[in-house]
Amino acid sequence: MTESSEPVLKQVDQDLEKSLDRLFDLLRIPSISAQPKHADDCRRAAEWLRAELTGLGFEASVRETPGHPMVVGHDPKAGSALHVLFYGHYDVQPTDPLTLWKSDPFEPSVTTEADGRKIIVARGASDDKGQLLTFIEACRAWKAVHGTLPVKVSLLIEGEEESGGANLMPFLKANASELKADVALICDTGMPDRKTPAITTGLRGLVGEEVEIICATHDLHSGMFGNAARNPIELLCKALGTVRDDKGRVTFPGFYDNVVVPSQAVRAQWQKIFSDDSVTLAPVGLTHPAGEEGFTAIEQIWARPSYEINGISGGYEGDGFKTVLPARAMAKISFRLVPGQDPEAVRAAFRAHIRSVLPSDAKVSFTEHGASTGFAVPENGPLLQTALGALSEEWGVPAVAIGCGGSIPVVAEVKEALDMDSLLVGFAQDDDRIHSPNEQYGVESFHKGIRSWVRILDAFSRS
Amino acid sequence: MTESSEPVLKQVDQDLEKSLDRLFDLLRIPSISAQPKHADDCRRAAEWLRAELTGLGFEASVRETPGHPMVVGHDPKAGSALHVLFYGHYDVQPTDPLTLWKSDPFEPSVTTEADGRKIIVARGASDDKGQLLTFIEACRAWKAVHGTLPVKVSLLIEGEEESGGANLMPFLKANASELKADVALICDTGMPDRKTPAITTGLRGLVGEEVEIICATHDLHSGMFGNAARNPIELLCKALGTVRDDKGRVTFPGFYDNVVVPSQAVRAQWQKIFSDDSVTLAPVGLTHPAGEEGFTAIEQIWARPSYEINGISGGYEGDGFKTVLPARAMAKISFRLVPGQDPEAVRAAFRAHIRSVLPSDAKVSFTEHGASTGFAVPENGPLLQTALGALSEEWGVPAVAIGCGGSIPVVAEVKEALDMDSLLVGFAQDDDRIHSPNEQYGVESFHKGIRSWVRILDAFSRS
Repeated sequence: MTESSEPVLKQVDQDLEKSLDRLFDLLRIPSISAQPKHADDCRRAAEWLRAELTGLGFEASVRETPGHPMVVGHDPKAGSALHVLFYGHYDVQPTDPLTLWKSDPFEPSVTTEADGRKIIVARGASDDKGQLLTFIEACRAWKAVHGTLPVKVSLLIEGEEESGGANLMPFLKANASELKADVALICDTGMPDRKTPAITTGLRGLVGEEVEIICATHDLHSGMFGNAARNPIELLCKALGTVRDDKGRVTFPGFYDNVVVPSQAVRAQWQKIFSDDSVTLAPVGLTHPAGEEGFTAIEQIWARPSYEINGISGGYEGDGFKTVLPARAMAKISFRLVPGQDPEAVRAAFRAHIRSVLPSDAKVSFTEHGASTGFAVPENGPLLQTALGALSEEWGVPAVAIGCGGSIPVVAEVKEALDMDSLLVGFAQDDDRIHSPNEQYGVESFHKGIRSWVRILDAFSRS
Repeated sequence: MTESSEPVLKQVDQDLEKSLDRLFDLLRIPSISAQPKHADDCRRAAEWLRAELTGLGFEASVRETPGHPMVVGHDPKAGSALHVLFYGHYDVQPTDPLTLWKSDPFEPSVTTEADGRKIIVARGASDDKGQLLTFIEACRAWKAVHGTLPVKVSLLIEGEEESGGANLMPFLKANASELKADVALICDTGMPDRKTPAITTGLRGLVGEEVEIICATHDLHSGMFGNAARNPIELLCKALGTVRDDKGRVTFPGFYDNVVVPSQAVRAQWQKIFSDDSVTLAPVGLTHPAGEEGFTAIEQIWARPSYEINGISGGYEGDGFKTVLPARAMAKISFRLVPGQDPEAVRAAFRAHIRSVLPSDAKVSFTEHGASTGFAVPENGPLLQTALGALSEEWGVPAVAIGCGGSIPVVAEVKEALDMDSLLVGFAQDDDRIHSPNEQYGVESFHKGIRSWVRILDAFSRS
């Protein structure tokens, strides 16, 4: 706590009820971007944010795109030269199945869990309206106490993150000079447990592929041809079974080229939180990690590339039995990539491997299902260490740099369009049920999230 | 040709048009056993057969079962002591998709193919009304010329062969003393090509299994768990991929125990008809046999046990892509068995093998989908050689003992209930389109089929 931040943190505490009221106002707007009937609601959410930002003294505007609009705000009157671009999204996931919700998804409430924890329940409570407002409320408190922000702040809040986000990249490119800052701050991630603050410094990329194998010209009777005719399901099984060896390693050449292993310091931090693989696996009923030997379960997810079969289909799949020898089999597979791996090189090597293990009479074809690179913030980046320090102060335990097994496309897009690195600071919990019925966000996540941003902005202004 | 058979064969030739008329009468009855609305038609077909047999001097009756009735006929006033039981079925497959039929499936006609071949087109033309009547018309001709049959003949004609045949076994057992004869003659199989007559002396049995593998308690996000959580599709692929090696041999112990290889003489006969694997494989667009090295394609189908994956399913199978790491995967597999193999031993060994290659965290369960043994007529059985000789005379080329990759349950049931061997003599062609739209039967198959039975019965009376 510094002289500057101390009164701001007090202001946050005093204003919490009103902050919650404002969050509830935003949560009541059913801004489901995937459903055309909610287009007006998306615009209402954008207008609501523009009005809030304008009220805080930002130069704020609603900006048109071919889809739902963006909200952009700028406050250049800051105490330091550092300039941050905050990113969030006001759109939310659909609510179906509605019958599983215990209350109206767009009538937020605060309820108390069996363990005494208070939670905000509503669609978007965590993803991303609650997280997004932690930053805006932090700005509000700074302004209320000091009249200005400690660093230059711009905001970009989109409305299509949950529905493909196709308009973000063109918007970033078209407005690059306006949006370019020193660093992007993204509040759309979580904490590894309830007490440990974290910055997500690694995200995995993805290569998606569909493999189809066709043998005979048509489905055959397994009695009439079984043994002599190639079975495409068997060939597909054999081929896909060779991609990873019994020690969990992908077998084809070049897959691990340039893959960087996290430092011992970072791995030790993870080891503290995930003392045992059961922390990761027991909640889903598993006991032994399936990936590479020599890495813990969490390391396999956060820091190692993966190979998964996401779907498979062929022959007779219904009830009972049919003695068919099918002509065709199909699988959808994906590789999660870590920084250093080239998606197109992985795709090419995978295809070459599959082709190399198939016999004649197997006609194979591949369909591309997306590609993205992995992402990593350098462990020793100065703003990263500053932000980790601020988080540690707020939460009273050392903040950790963590990974994330999934992809957050905006990070790569900001890098490509604006040549800017991102810091992913978020306060979500694993049980927030994002994208599911009864989505929730801890009041503590919201409150300490606001306080965390107060400290981070303060620390940035001194860095 | 003998003194006895010569006038009978002439009678067959002269009476062919009337034989076709009678076949057409039977084909006009839509005796689809699987469809309850055709129950009366099934009974009509049974009554029609009973009337025909009665007209020929058989003691014939329609016999009730819990399903469609059986027709049983006896003519014990024969020239020799040998007693044959002829088996056929009057029921037919459904006709859907009806739109693919070029004419009404129950309004038979004779049409001429591009190559000049005359064919009978109707549902059941080949399977089994046309084949069944070859025998009855042969009896008719014998009776017309000589007043009696050359051997004792009983007939059993069932009405549920195309819909499970659940009532056959109980009927055989309940009427064993009435139906027991020296040999069963079954006319429900085919010829290896248009010119070579054949007796099917080997049928493969079947073991059907369903394998389900479950790992996590629910579907996971492949980003959040991919690498660390076991993927049941991958495990299923790896496990099923180990069942057959790269040389086409099943790998688990005991599978080939007691499997008998056909004699060199029989293999040489097959080699003459299937001079090249392309005879078997080219019609379905394939070039290389998939089964064991050292056996031709036709040997792999007729004389070797097989392993097939008949269906597989798991994860996301729809359009596009979903980054799911599924909890469950399923496959349906089957083994075709040859004589000597014990279905339940194969099943147990398969299950043990799959269990042995799965890691912990994979919960596997198996569901049984039927079991039957393979069947073989001893190559040197006296009636077999006699029948082959008679067929050779009729067709002018040496008749061959062939295999059949599929199963014909009645053979095993006759063996079990009546302790009787079967001779499978049939005149169908591969392009008869049985079970499909535009089913056909060559007029030559019908005509020479009748003549073949005349010669076989004659030869049996002298054996």
